[in-house]
Amino acid sequence: MPHIDLPEGVPGIRSAMMFRPETAGPLLSLAEVLLRGDNTLSRGERELIAAYVSNLNECTFCQSSHSWFAALQLDEGMPLVEAVKRDPETAEISDKLRALLRIAAKVRADGRSVTEDDVAAARAEGATDVEIHDTVLIAAAFCMFNRYVDGLATLTPVDPAAYDEMGRRMAEHGYVQRS
Amino acid sequence: MPHIDLPEGVPGIRSAMMFRPETAGPLLSLAEVLLRGDNTLSRGERELIAAYVSNLNECTFCQSSHSWFAALQLDEGMPLVEAVKRDPETAEISDKLRALLRIAAKVRADGRSVTEDDVAAARAEGATDVEIHDTVLIAAAFCMFNRYVDGLATLTPVDPAAYDEMGRRMAEHGYVQRS
Repeated sequence: MPHIDLPEGVPGIRSAMMFRPETAGPLLSLAEVLLRGDNTLSRGERELIAAYVSNLNECTFCQSSHSWFAALQLDEGMPLVEAVKRDPETAEISDKLRALLRIAAKVRADGRSVTEDDVAAARAEGATDVEIHDTVLIAAAFCMFNRYVDGLATLTPVDPAAYDEMGRRMAEHGYVQRS
Repeated sequence: MPHIDLPEGVPGIRSAMMFRPETAGPLLSLAEVLLRGDNTLSRGERELIAAYVSNLNECTFCQSSHSWFAALQLDEGMPLVEAVKRDPETAEISDKLRALLRIAAKVRADGRSVTEDDVAAARAEGATDVEIHDTVLIAAAFCMFNRYVDGLATLTPVDPAAYDEMGRRMAEHGYVQRS
């Protein structure tokens, strides 16, 4: 049961955004730029960072939805997403993405825990400053989205079909049009 | 020393926003709506929630700047901000704001820790659903801003005059124009 009077039957963050369109605008624009805007990290890789951080934060709605969004946009699909959530150190991803996921996990715990060595390691694997910036901000933003969704106790669908449908709509229309 | 090549000498989040204007736009719009938009919570009260959460997250740049922003917009000024950061339970604030700060502290720790009783207690003190929503989102958003600022190791000014100057500019022009 949501803590406040959110539109009934609407899942997760969408219900909070319908309740408060004034804040939904900037939140959706942020997701669109970070996860779908022009970038040398693919959309699948960026959704993977979002799913990974949301999974560490144990936000069921966000980790489920962004796992689907990642799977839909990665050639390797859900098996790779599951492998990354289990252990990015052993998952079959590029060493650059692995180094960025290490930074994301540290940002999620506490921004101050990111070290010069973490950043140097990502750079040594070819990460650019923009990629490092965006990884930090994606991880930080999902620390917001996860708390927003769970702090209001929004509805978490249990049927995977609900996430698949949200994912297909997002992949086709993007985040901004979903508001 | 910032982890990436941010504009030199520019403090905190402003340096990250100059580095990546594509994400600065939505971030500044979010701050503007949440902290300065039409609301039954005053601008000073909302900045107080931001300062309180940033202080719990030990983000020196954010807690210093939003403490100044709160103090500039509250009749009681910095002494009240300091009292709230020390202990909101004993600070001379309304019981409604106290109940909202309790929710903010829980969101900061983990969104799932907010209980029906916490929300009922805020409602009993007169908090509306929008006020509860905005408190949850301000707390969540500062969990993002704090990690963004510290995860990139942005410059933290030590001279209080720097924060005072930022505060006066923000109070006059708002967040969006600062980009």
